Amino acid sequence: MCPSTGARAGVLHTAHGDVETPVFMPVGTQAAVKGLLPRDLIQDLDAKIILGNTYHLFLRPGHESIRRLGGLHAFMQWPRAILTDSGGFQVFSLNGLRKVTEEGVLFRSHLNGDSHLFTPESTIDVQLALGSDIMMVLDECLEYPASHQAARISTDRTVRWARAAYAHYRRHENDNRNRDGIDGRRACFPIVQGSMYADLRRNCVEELLKLEADGYAVGGLSVGEPRALSLEMAEITTPLLPADRPRYVMGVGMPEELPEYVARGVDMMDCVLPSRNARNGYLFTSTGRILIKQAQFKDDARPVDERCDCYTCRGFSRAYLRHLFLAGEMAFSTLATLHNLRRYLDIMREMRQAILLGKFPEYLGAVRAIPRVSHGANEPPK
Amino acid sequence: MCPSTGARAGVLHTAHGDVETPVFMPVGTQAAVKGLLPRDLIQDLDAKIILGNTYHLFLRPGHESIRRLGGLHAFMQWPRAILTDSGGFQVFSLNGLRKVTEEGVLFRSHLNGDSHLFTPESTIDVQLALGSDIMMVLDECLEYPASHQAARISTDRTVRWARAAYAHYRRHENDNRNRDGIDGRRACFPIVQGSMYADLRRNCVEELLKLEADGYAVGGLSVGEPRALSLEMAEITTPLLPADRPRYVMGVGMPEELPEYVARGVDMMDCVLPSRNARNGYLFTSTGRILIKQAQFKDDARPVDERCDCYTCRGFSRAYLRHLFLAGEMAFSTLATLHNLRRYLDIMREMRQAILLGKFPEYLGAVRAIPRVSHGANEPPK
Repeated sequence: MCPSTGARAGVLHTAHGDVETPVFMPVGTQAAVKGLLPRDLIQDLDAKIILGNTYHLFLRPGHESIRRLGGLHAFMQWPRAILTDSGGFQVFSLNGLRKVTEEGVLFRSHLNGDSHLFTPESTIDVQLALGSDIMMVLDECLEYPASHQAARISTDRTVRWARAAYAHYRRHENDNRNRDGIDGRRACFPIVQGSMYADLRRNCVEELLKLEADGYAVGGLSVGEPRALSLEMAEITTPLLPADRPRYVMGVGMPEELPEYVARGVDMMDCVLPSRNARNGYLFTSTGRILIKQAQFKDDARPVDERCDCYTCRGFSRAYLRHLFLAGEMAFSTLATLHNLRRYLDIMREMRQAILLGKFPEYLGAVRAIPRVSHGANEPPK
Repeated sequence: MCPSTGARAGVLHTAHGDVETPVFMPVGTQAAVKGLLPRDLIQDLDAKIILGNTYHLFLRPGHESIRRLGGLHAFMQWPRAILTDSGGFQVFSLNGLRKVTEEGVLFRSHLNGDSHLFTPESTIDVQLALGSDIMMVLDECLEYPASHQAARISTDRTVRWARAAYAHYRRHENDNRNRDGIDGRRACFPIVQGSMYADLRRNCVEELLKLEADGYAVGGLSVGEPRALSLEMAEITTPLLPADRPRYVMGVGMPEELPEYVARGVDMMDCVLPSRNARNGYLFTSTGRILIKQAQFKDDARPVDERCDCYTCRGFSRAYLRHLFLAGEMAFSTLATLHNLRRYLDIMREMRQAILLGKFPEYLGAVRAIPRVSHGANEPPK
């Protein structure tokens, strides 16, 4: 715990290994982190936890299929921890046609138009079938901007859904404990919503605290709002959450934002930005972001980042990466994703080290002193 | 040397390591083997030599650029041997508009339409800039079918071009030896053409033998002719080539054809079939080819090939690979390419072992006994 900011260093214990926090979780939407193999994630990144998407895996290949094949860890050959979202975000962002009722949300598959219903209970069941280490409850993820009234109605429903999901999860855990005599060491997090309204966020936290949950997530950020507002909402929310439980802000952020969230007491983050930027040719370095296709890199024999020790930076030149990008070679996406995710994970490890050494304020000051290009609003991830 | 077939086991010595033959060379068209990283080629496949495409690298990023960056080995971080083709095949297969004269071939870039001239001398210069270990001379690669007269005119020109290219290569090697006092251990192979006419193939060999070349390639196969005809042309050609020089048949073939070429005295082969089939979902196993997207593999927990020891087969199920393929995940191409190339390289290693143990005829008999689906004509590679 940093004495002057909210930054914390901790450890999550899961059935698939310990996870040191603060942590950034690479996104493995469809049972694969785009462009990488499990061994890359372990050997090159030493990632301890990755994220899987309930919505995508429910539709394809189907959670029952994955259960039959031994669960998501066995299916994708990932021996470490997995966090799965509830599918709420994708239902609300990928589906034009959907119908929200008290029971849940009726939506159409973006793959073939088939109708499906997600309920608070069913999304827990899907995540149990996947064998997730950390599950999320179903929430309603509002677009930005939303009126106070719409946000209030939605947040109240998210709270009711969280209660239903949590009750279902607890029943299952109790049954399991009674039957097997073991504690599966699974966890389930409710999600704080409330759009960009401080009062709604506070009310939501108050209600969700009654669940005495294993950890808490902050959702509904990264939906197109200005970045300052995302941070403000996190800043309002995190101090209200229990100090002894992990806090996860979903869907953030840019490299320079990671320390800002950590300074506000956030332990866990995930985002498609490092991998999506990689595939689009944007590489993050310790001195800023570069667009590899630019002509200035044509004969540049230097690595992407001289201070980086990843496989990409240990051997390959900017000139070669530029060539692969322009030639449309798959190896570009792999090398670029490897580098960008390594950069994110290195930032997290630097921060943890700084917190443990009592030097996080200096670290944060140094990061803030680097001039940045404005990137505008958060891009909503998919 | 197999006593009853033409099969040979040998070793090529290059400045970038020894290459045991018979050998199959993975194709790295644009300074990358599609879907793989150099470390995959070394750790998973133990490939000792790969192929680079002069035409593609000449156009993008340009051979002078690669020379400035230390040559193709340094550029793509490939420490082992590289063979480059002359670009002839691509000029003739990728270009609708081209003009062949005694001087060379004028063609338009398939990327931007710019005009370029390849001459026998210029393609050697490009390959020298790349720093290739084994270069090919410029040849004219005829479509199938071609009339005897057209083939004769073309083959005669290929011979004259080979003489010009070889003279240019020899001058460069002599200059280099005089200047540096070292033998760079480079090699240059002329290419036997002659369409599907035995007399033209024989005449072509006769002329090319006068060059006393380091090795000989057989080109103009895999251009759409029936597979039996490709084999027949190889069978006519190889016995005429020097016994103490490597023989390379360009652009073949399917797994079951590899032993047929080796039985006819071929030492080196290359083809895009294993990697292209991989990307299209066709996986080669020791018992035949499977199409992974088929519904029968939906819940199939077995590896692609239980007898295969590659990274893909050591951990991943057919069900998972099918999922990755249907989901359009890049990891599919990587895992599938890894497996298919490993299968090809394992076949080559099995054959070498059989030849060294004097058991190649049994090996060939066993391969021929496996029932095959007819695949029709060779697909021309790109």
